[in-house]
Amino acid sequence: MTSDKPIIIDCLQYCNWSREIFEEMKAGGVTAVHVTICYHEQFRETIQNMERWNRWFQEHGDLIVPGRSAGDVRRAHEDGKTAIIFGFQNCSPMEDDIGLVEILHQLGARFMQLSYNNQSLLATGCYEAEDPGITRFGKQAIREMNRVGMVIDMSHSAQRSTLEAIDLSERPIAITHANPAFWHTALRNKSDEVLKALGESGGMLGFSLYPFHLNGHSNCRLDDFCDMIARTADLMGLDNIGIGTDLVQGQPDSIVEWMRNGRWSLETDYGEGSKDNAGWPGPLAWFEGNRDFGNIAEGLKARGFTEPEVDNVMGLNWLRFFETSFGPQD
Amino acid sequence: MTSDKPIIIDCLQYCNWSREIFEEMKAGGVTAVHVTICYHEQFRETIQNMERWNRWFQEHGDLIVPGRSAGDVRRAHEDGKTAIIFGFQNCSPMEDDIGLVEILHQLGARFMQLSYNNQSLLATGCYEAEDPGITRFGKQAIREMNRVGMVIDMSHSAQRSTLEAIDLSERPIAITHANPAFWHTALRNKSDEVLKALGESGGMLGFSLYPFHLNGHSNCRLDDFCDMIARTADLMGLDNIGIGTDLVQGQPDSIVEWMRNGRWSLETDYGEGSKDNAGWPGPLAWFEGNRDFGNIAEGLKARGFTEPEVDNVMGLNWLRFFETSFGPQD
Repeated sequence: MTSDKPIIIDCLQYCNWSREIFEEMKAGGVTAVHVTICYHEQFRETIQNMERWNRWFQEHGDLIVPGRSAGDVRRAHEDGKTAIIFGFQNCSPMEDDIGLVEILHQLGARFMQLSYNNQSLLATGCYEAEDPGITRFGKQAIREMNRVGMVIDMSHSAQRSTLEAIDLSERPIAITHANPAFWHTALRNKSDEVLKALGESGGMLGFSLYPFHLNGHSNCRLDDFCDMIARTADLMGLDNIGIGTDLVQGQPDSIVEWMRNGRWSLETDYGEGSKDNAGWPGPLAWFEGNRDFGNIAEGLKARGFTEPEVDNVMGLNWLRFFETSFGPQD
Repeated sequence: MTSDKPIIIDCLQYCNWSREIFEEMKAGGVTAVHVTICYHEQFRETIQNMERWNRWFQEHGDLIVPGRSAGDVRRAHEDGKTAIIFGFQNCSPMEDDIGLVEILHQLGARFMQLSYNNQSLLATGCYEAEDPGITRFGKQAIREMNRVGMVIDMSHSAQRSTLEAIDLSERPIAITHANPAFWHTALRNKSDEVLKALGESGGMLGFSLYPFHLNGHSNCRLDDFCDMIARTADLMGLDNIGIGTDLVQGQPDSIVEWMRNGRWSLETDYGEGSKDNAGWPGPLAWFEGNRDFGNIAEGLKARGFTEPEVDNVMGLNWLRFFETSFGPQD
């Protein structure tokens, strides 16, 4: 029993999963992780990825459990395990078939991005020149995701689509991994307008630790990061923020190539990198992996957050969001 | 609340589903039905069939509910609804992929036949000339079905494969819809050897009302049918028998053609029929559909079954079997 420890929830990772990483989660006291199980995969390929997780749940049941509800997360906390919550960075697993939203939810998916950098069937990605907003199919998908309890994630979507998703969705949405553009300008970071609308609608922002989203990139300072969190809390509310590190551990460069190029690009797309800087960015000194969440909590305390406020940002805000988001609509 | 009515469970139907039929189930007091959602469909096609059911559960939630556990069946009984239990008449939905067993179970499948008339990747069907028994893949599939709680159904399988499945399976199996060959000789009916082994292993037989499986076909008499049930109870035990009508309502002849020919046959296969008798057999006078289960119960009483014995055959035996069969292995 480790239930006296704080609840730590990371609302995005996409590591090269292994027992070693699951052990690091335990060592770091990580209660729940939203794991990416698809970038460009279609339905059948996503099922294959779920099958792999089903085997990991069997083989490493002493460390990880499926996370499909806030209750699963609480039980994981009591048992000193990590709840694994499935999410998609793109809508490709539902293909052109609205009925797959419920099927994928039945199989444990709890987050789906409506678009990943590019235009999708549902919405526009943040790398497109034009953003015509949520599509006809997208409006139906939002209603269906609302109905079954799959969270709309707009981390990689463009601004108009994001504002429309916030408006159209009858339930609060999430931006699981991004930072405010006021702190660091990047296509992936979000404007004050988006963050305010997100906070006012009861949605959640997860702060990213991916160096391309950070002021100073891999040299970003912890105190600067925590100051940004404090300023974002002023903008969108202390209850609407959490962590979504975008942590990658142990992935080969072929994965970042897959993320950026999928099957759609004949020319190499370098995403947030460049031809001379095509691979993964270097790690932060104060956050290398799942053992280091304590550093963030310490940084927040040093910035003046109270202990209950730190607990909210490190996990309890996400837990409350899961509570009202993962089940069927009332 | 209709919980004073008996629990009636039909362990196989494959009707042309509609609100009208769901209303007939309610009128007939049918507590649960194992419905066929696949004959030859591959994984993606089976998902499509599940999607259709998901919509029916939404549209007709006042009449039907998903049946994934004995608890679901009991709740349906209390609420005066019918629990719908998904099953496959073939192993085609799992394709060549052992991981799909768990995925399909997560989506609600609770019965899977290892073969449908023909040789499959797992076992031999009852129309093949040779039966080499359970295959290498079949042995692994049986273990996996045991692990997750998907019932092995050998209704359309050949004798050696069936005996081996009973032996290899660590959990009791089912023959959801067939009759004893001692009463009516048919490729689909089962020998004393199979029925005895089934009963001794704690497995279940569901008595079929499909005319091709009946003595006298569509002219079969109710008293003869009930006498056959009494003789089968003597052979395999009163706790190991139930109903599995194989009821078809409102299906066009194209469905019986699909069942018999799938995509595998260039020549037309007539299955249990013939070229001159290619369509559905005519109905029985005393069992035309879901309103008529009371006739069977009356017939059993007339044959000398006590009231508790009738309740067991009409539903409680299946309910107890569901209780120990649908969850993960201990």
